[in-house]
Amino acid sequence: MSAGRPRPTSSRKSASAAITLTTDFGLSDPFVGIMKGVIAQRAPSTTVIDVSHGIAPQDVMAGALVLRAAESYFPAGTVHVVVVDPGVGSARGALCLQTERALFVGPDNGVLTLAAPAARVRGAFAITNETFCLHPRSATFHGRDVFAPVAAALATGTPPTALGPRLDNFTELSLPEPAAGVGEIIYIDHFGNLVTNLPPPTNRSATLRIADDITIDLVTSYAAGAPGSLIAVVNSWNLIEIAVRNGSARDRLHARVGDAVRLLP
Amino acid sequence: MSAGRPRPTSSRKSASAAITLTTDFGLSDPFVGIMKGVIAQRAPSTTVIDVSHGIAPQDVMAGALVLRAAESYFPAGTVHVVVVDPGVGSARGALCLQTERALFVGPDNGVLTLAAPAARVRGAFAITNETFCLHPRSATFHGRDVFAPVAAALATGTPPTALGPRLDNFTELSLPEPAAGVGEIIYIDHFGNLVTNLPPPTNRSATLRIADDITIDLVTSYAAGAPGSLIAVVNSWNLIEIAVRNGSARDRLHARVGDAVRLLP
Amino acid sequence: MSAGRPRPTSSRKSASAAITLTTDFGLSDPFVGIMKGVIAQRAPSTTVIDVSHGIAPQDVMAGALVLRAAESYFPAGTVHVVVVDPGVGSARGALCLQTERALFVGPDNGVLTLAAPAARVRGAFAITNETFCLHPRSATFHGRDVFAPVAAALATGTPPTALGPRLDNFTELSLPEPAAGVGEIIYIDHFGNLVTNLPPPTNRSATLRIADDITIDLVTSYAAGAPGSLIAVVNSWNLIEIAVRNGSARDRLHARVGDAVRLLP
Repeated sequence: MSAGRPRPTSSRKSASAAITLTTDFGLSDPFVGIMKGVIAQRAPSTTVIDVSHGIAPQDVMAGALVLRAAESYFPAGTVHVVVVDPGVGSARGALCLQTERALFVGPDNGVLTLAAPAARVRGAFAITNETFCLHPRSATFHGRDVFAPVAAALATGTPPTALGPRLDNFTELSLPEPAAGVGEIIYIDHFGNLVTNLPPPTNRSATLRIADDITIDLVTSYAAGAPGSLIAVVNSWNLIEIAVRNGSARDRLHARVGDAVRLLP
Repeated sequence: MSAGRPRPTSSRKSASAAITLTTDFGLSDPFVGIMKGVIAQRAPSTTVIDVSHGIAPQDVMAGALVLRAAESYFPAGTVHVVVVDPGVGSARGALCLQTERALFVGPDNGVLTLAAPAARVRGAFAITNETFCLHPRSATFHGRDVFAPVAAALATGTPPTALGPRLDNFTELSLPEPAAGVGEIIYIDHFGNLVTNLPPPTNRSATLRIADDITIDLVTSYAAGAPGSLIAVVNSWNLIEIAVRNGSARDRLHARVGDAVRLLP
Repeated sequence: MSAGRPRPTSSRKSASAAITLTTDFGLSDPFVGIMKGVIAQRAPSTTVIDVSHGIAPQDVMAGALVLRAAESYFPAGTVHVVVVDPGVGSARGALCLQTERALFVGPDNGVLTLAAPAARVRGAFAITNETFCLHPRSATFHGRDVFAPVAAALATGTPPTALGPRLDNFTELSLPEPAAGVGEIIYIDHFGNLVTNLPPPTNRSATLRIADDITIDLVTSYAAGAPGSLIAVVNSWNLIEIAVRNGSARDRLHARVGDAVRLLP
């Protein structure tokens, strides 16, 4: 186990890793742009990529799921910043996690830990060294004052060991596990597709039940359903997802995160 | 006619063309960010530019119109990716079109063909060579698994001939043509402005009729109308557009794409 | 006072400054992407950073506030473009302002002048030299035809003196000043937080009154309030802001920009 930053495997000449941003800031205010300004000042040759700024306000689990879905598609050495931070300005810690592949920066509220679960973490560090932060530090916008400048430092070669003391513990989230064939909706996307926590059945054949009396068959693709029909597919996260072809399953079923989905025997 | 990729005319040192993205994915989910991650891995020095991710779900015509409006403003050699793809996972083909100026990648459902109509296409290729795709390929997210990695390959110099066999035919869309002075609304923008398929009259003077009994005069700019008044202008796509100064013509007229607009004699 | 462009202080090799974009264009249409295409053609190595495209249509004051909040976080030498432009196509001027630190480009309607107030402006220039513009110039989209190409020219070293004649006067906006302890809401963010024009009290202790009979105490952070409670904090713009912990103060109070907020003695 090495304390050093994972090396990018790409062939780019730049000495700088990429930085991704995931927040609940939306895009109508200047908050995301300001974070990018801070990074442009401190790590001007770094590529900054938005994962999402449309996480529902304060929805730590949604932020964690989105980062988990995205992380493995980015270059090795990427610095992933997540700011879904209802505890900003309180005593909650600021955290840097290091895995074999990437670095993760955000509040110590679990939001990093579906992408970087403890079993894969090689180093966890409290961000306490104010050298890397903006001064004065506001009580409301640590994305600007802490997480963006720390990410810029990491992307330009500062080792995570410089940020603060190594931590033995940090807040972890875990996905609800399906039990006895009963899962639940864990995420609803922009199309109104309902992502469950149910893994694909081994024979790729299944029937689901939702809302007491609605049964839905697993098919091979969205286009395999009749237009307007309720279908289930194995989605790009390798989970079972309920959809309406060319429509919104959320609207059809008035579905919400947490609703039970039963895998029929 | 050459099978090679058009050379960028810009003076940038990079060997890599720009890539644009146009999708109906929205920005709240991680889908667009994941496509950018795939590109960052495979073409790290490529600039990726968002054209729009706000195409209405499955609205192939709107995606085609948006790309048509944007394409000519990008550098020669740009790779334009469009993912409005209701047929994902079905037997619909994946397509690469080459014009004198640019490359276009997306599903073979017509979405590329207002920007790259057959008359301007110098080469059409089926994307069948899985070398350039991610494995395993999901049934729901070819933006990630096919179109982003193929675009990265093209942007870094892979010739489109390497993607698969040359095609004699592909699905084409066409804009509805106005007939006998009767056009229609083809696109409604964020401001509620109503873009018609009517070209500017030769004398820049015209009166339109919409919704049976509302007449609207062509003026020289939005600001030439009284605040709150209905006006028509020649817009930046060189088409006649109906607007409300400092307001929304869509809301005022309860207008929809497809509504007739008559040019009065 | 020098007429030259401020030099970037960053160590990047590129000869090109960064460009920021702030508009009311939204992200569903191709307008922002087209501006980036124009910049990619004319200044291909320039980094373009979005500040916001979610300014409410034609809300010049909101655009000015957003740029003011963001400007100081960007590298010296940055070119800031703002297009909130209800007068596009009319006789309103196009403007370039130069401060010690940055360049500002947009319509002469005041939108640049909270970030670049006259007292800090070292040079003001009318954009009249059509050499830098696209031809033909539309009457509806100067973001594409004027402001993007002018910004590309400035970012690649064209001095602002080349754009047109020096101006003695330009339209200025000013923030409403609180009077006798009565301020007002000047901006409402994505979370529903209400930003006032009240500066922090010297002793960091205060009680506010809003909507006749609701009193709210100043606390140190969002997290210092009980979930669901109304609180006030000193925000990241160093102004007093009214919030609901894990909720929306806008929705709770049915608040609007311009509503009075009284600082109790």
